[in-house]
Amino acid sequence: MRRNPQVAEATVYRLSRYLQSVQRLDADAVGTVSSSEIGRLSGVSAAQVRKDFSYFGGFGRPGVGYSISELRQHLARILRVDREQRIVIVGIGHLGAALAAYPGFQQRGFRIVGLFDSDPTKIGITLAGHRVRDVEELPALVEPLKVSIGAIAVPARSAQAVADKMVAGKVAAILNFAPVMLEVREDVVVKNVDVTRELECLAYYLPAP
Amino acid sequence: MRRNPQVAEATVYRLSRYLQSVQRLDADAVGTVSSSEIGRLSGVSAAQVRKDFSYFGGFGRPGVGYSISELRQHLARILRVDREQRIVIVGIGHLGAALAAYPGFQQRGFRIVGLFDSDPTKIGITLAGHRVRDVEELPALVEPLKVSIGAIAVPARSAQAVADKMVAGKVAAILNFAPVMLEVREDVVVKNVDVTRELECLAYYLPAP
Repeated sequence: MRRNPQVAEATVYRLSRYLQSVQRLDADAVGTVSSSEIGRLSGVSAAQVRKDFSYFGGFGRPGVGYSISELRQHLARILRVDREQRIVIVGIGHLGAALAAYPGFQQRGFRIVGLFDSDPTKIGITLAGHRVRDVEELPALVEPLKVSIGAIAVPARSAQAVADKMVAGKVAAILNFAPVMLEVREDVVVKNVDVTRELECLAYYLPAP
Repeated sequence: MRRNPQVAEATVYRLSRYLQSVQRLDADAVGTVSSSEIGRLSGVSAAQVRKDFSYFGGFGRPGVGYSISELRQHLARILRVDREQRIVIVGIGHLGAALAAYPGFQQRGFRIVGLFDSDPTKIGITLAGHRVRDVEELPALVEPLKVSIGAIAVPARSAQAVADKMVAGKVAAILNFAPVMLEVREDVVVKNVDVTRELECLAYYLPAP
């Protein structure tokens, strides 16, 4: 993850929350919003909002607040969701099917452009408007489909082989749902989503028995 | 999240990674491991490993390393996964079904003890060995089923009502997959898993077009 290494991952997460908050405000697309209001909607302090924005050149006017529409554009540009990001999903089990059918992606600038599996009983079926393709076809299709992100929703044992195919096809980033650490070329960004880890981190906060 | 407020969420995440790394080492359950080896397996520096452990009373011996079996027990105890944590899942769409069928939970100390939905066509079906129950029964079942964590896998519009039922039944923690900020009593811990947010944060690191 080479971009702006001085910006912590936690900051990027908060920017994404701010964007979502501002998008909720944007129904009428007029007016301004204060850092305290953004903070309240996003669950952080106004000081944190101002500090985070300051990394990117601080885009409010003192005493006036932030233009809602400008802020939305600015945050979307920083997060690179001001353009469509095209995704393929590999592994059409329950999780892959959930991802394929999720309406939230399209609303926030992500477009699913291909589904892949290695199971002959799944190849050829249609799901959420996409015909499931053979994963062997993936490397050759990344470029013509203009894919930037590959999502891996296969079991742990198959995940590295799928990642290798994605890298061979030159995806820029991988969202990995398999509970395994992938080895990829240095210029490919990987983000792991591990639900068991989320549970463990939640369990930490449980009251003592 | 009131426990040890000086321990950052990122630290808890790393502890969970360390535990997973140590569990992989634990096949023979003998011997010691160094902080550099734990770091290498977990993708962090040896200094970070030692610093994180020091928050919890530093449990290695200088120059000897960490006993693998003791470390595993200690980390599991800190993360409260040294005992079984019992989970219910509400919302048996693709995502809920994926969670219900996921083999990784049981391996890491989590046990699914109930599935719930409000859809009459789903109530009564059996999935991953559980009969799907009416969500209206949930509040009365949290205590007899000894549930500590409730997972919400329903659409955004229904999530708050489900959270209210979980809180009424006195779950201690909620893992929320719906893209909405839940309002719950202060003593209930909520963790949000928002896949679109993960995608946005990944997009941030994409190369400029």
